[in-house]
Amino acid sequence: MKEIMGVHTYREISEQPQALKEAYEEALRRKEWAETYLGDAEVQQTLFLGSGSSYYQAITMAATYRSWLKRPATALPSSDLLLIREQVVLEQSRTVAIGVSRSGESTEVVKALDSVKELPDWRLAGVTCYAESSMAKLGDSLVSKLGAEKSTVMTKSLASMIVGMQTAIALVSDRSGEHLQELDQLVQAQEERVREGEQLAQAAVSARNFDRTVFLGMGAMFGIAEEGCLKLKEMSNTWTESFGTLEFRHGPKSIVDQHTCVIVLVSDRSREAELKVAREMQDYGAYVVVAASAAGEDTAFADAFVETGLVGGSDEARAVAALPFLQYYGYFTALKRGNNPDEPRNLTQVVLI
Amino acid sequence: MKEIMGVHTYREISEQPQALKEAYEEALRRKEWAETYLGDAEVQQTLFLGSGSSYYQAITMAATYRSWLKRPATALPSSDLLLIREQVVLEQSRTVAIGVSRSGESTEVVKALDSVKELPDWRLAGVTCYAESSMAKLGDSLVSKLGAEKSTVMTKSLASMIVGMQTAIALVSDRSGEHLQELDQLVQAQEERVREGEQLAQAAVSARNFDRTVFLGMGAMFGIAEEGCLKLKEMSNTWTESFGTLEFRHGPKSIVDQHTCVIVLVSDRSREAELKVAREMQDYGAYVVVAASAAGEDTAFADAFVETGLVGGSDEARAVAALPFLQYYGYFTALKRGNNPDEPRNLTQVVLI
Repeated sequence: MKEIMGVHTYREISEQPQALKEAYEEALRRKEWAETYLGDAEVQQTLFLGSGSSYYQAITMAATYRSWLKRPATALPSSDLLLIREQVVLEQSRTVAIGVSRSGESTEVVKALDSVKELPDWRLAGVTCYAESSMAKLGDSLVSKLGAEKSTVMTKSLASMIVGMQTAIALVSDRSGEHLQELDQLVQAQEERVREGEQLAQAAVSARNFDRTVFLGMGAMFGIAEEGCLKLKEMSNTWTESFGTLEFRHGPKSIVDQHTCVIVLVSDRSREAELKVAREMQDYGAYVVVAASAAGEDTAFADAFVETGLVGGSDEARAVAALPFLQYYGYFTALKRGNNPDEPRNLTQVVLI
Repeated sequence: MKEIMGVHTYREISEQPQALKEAYEEALRRKEWAETYLGDAEVQQTLFLGSGSSYYQAITMAATYRSWLKRPATALPSSDLLLIREQVVLEQSRTVAIGVSRSGESTEVVKALDSVKELPDWRLAGVTCYAESSMAKLGDSLVSKLGAEKSTVMTKSLASMIVGMQTAIALVSDRSGEHLQELDQLVQAQEERVREGEQLAQAAVSARNFDRTVFLGMGAMFGIAEEGCLKLKEMSNTWTESFGTLEFRHGPKSIVDQHTCVIVLVSDRSREAELKVAREMQDYGAYVVVAASAAGEDTAFADAFVETGLVGGSDEARAVAALPFLQYYGYFTALKRGNNPDEPRNLTQVVLI
């Protein structure tokens, strides 16, 4: 039984190194796209719009944009722009709105972009896996063609769209050479991340019978923590939550006990403070997984350690390195519970309204 | 036993009408504060900073600011500004950073404000319940003095700090008269919201044995949904989640079944789309609570209905009207499970690092 469940998801996770490489190279070929939609210093408001996993990608993309370009960017659920525009954006500002959608057919992002296309100072763009999609017709789009998937849950599509967008951001940043180099390193290392991620996830899932798993991270890593949380929720229907790492201490930590797995995606910038939170959760009885650039004495306490690499590099470029472990963690939890990872309950591949 | 558990929380929820009234009147007396920190059109970046419940307040405050003032505002966890500044803000922009903290002593917000106080174009401000606190010494602060509480969990403090800030925002908006009038109405009606909220929450909690509760809302209401979620989590340690209403359809809804309570805080702007989500969750077997300005044929399907009032008014001013029901929902769930609402597991009143 287990042999035939989740074949698409399993294969697609393992295919991400090639998808990342192609997305990186495609973005390099589309330098004029980066200059037009990301490199215009006159733009006052840049929006990354998505739903579900695509919103979580948008969070990581917007954090990268702010950090590398020193200009404002906002990640928004597409439905916010579509339905409550006044509360979330400034209509009068010179704006680039970038839709994020695997299929390019998700009703909300297509309708959201369509709803602002007549605004005088707004330009539309996108990132998708399908060049011929409705979204790509509304706004010139970056394409990750090897990101296309059979499974309902997004894995390599998500990782590769983030890397494609980060490469485009790197192209127009002041530290272009440095960021492109670290993204190239990330892409090269993802094969190893996939191999290690599978083993570590299998070990973590069988370590205890968790009845809840919490994913923590900050900034660019927060988008990845949210995504890890959603992968597990979709595939296994278990209790999963995600929070900013230090935010978790302000109330939510009341749920932690010995049946809890806490996965902390540590940023180099905030390593000391985040590891302190991780240790506190272990004191409450949790099984603690630490993902960080490199192991050290300060991570020896962790029940499991996931290396994200790029030592000396940026937290933004490192974010995608944590994904294979998180995706496999969801996958193996689903199998352990007898769920089919390819076909989550209540869900479909493209969400239409 | 039940008679003596949670006395502080219970009393403090019921005291919110007076706390709201005082916060509203105090903000009216501090018009120069509003003009200085909210009314300066030269400011490029306005930040609302908090942790836990105070971050959720910040979300509602920032949504109100954007909608009523048509200028950019961002809600951030204090720890983001403190630890990963490059990813979240623009150092070079003319900025007002407003700390949000009941005690004014939460380490993260105090350290976060302290970390930016030397930046040339930055000014600091705050909103708190304690005029003499460390935060109030760092930045001129609005004070909700009747918001001060004995319970670890925030109830009237949160509601009143939001109303104080919204009143200050209203004072400097183009539609000042209109927004002040609706806030005045909100304050008057909160007594009724408290009375109804208690009855409705008690009924909902005893309707079924839920093993999970989901809180949905958008924009200003999303901050309130997050807060309702945290109240329940802190007081009862049960499985609770919150999402943007339409976001919930993109994956997370896979957890919904007949043991799930889904509470939807409907905005007038997006009523039709949000009620459609609510009906879908009922189709999956969930018990559905709808909170909206007024009941109608379109809400007849709901298992319970919570009136938020202010018909014809704005969704921003209406946000706080949903709080009493949510706070009592957490309170009665805690009692049902034998937990003491005043003393959540693992938590303290002020979070120090």
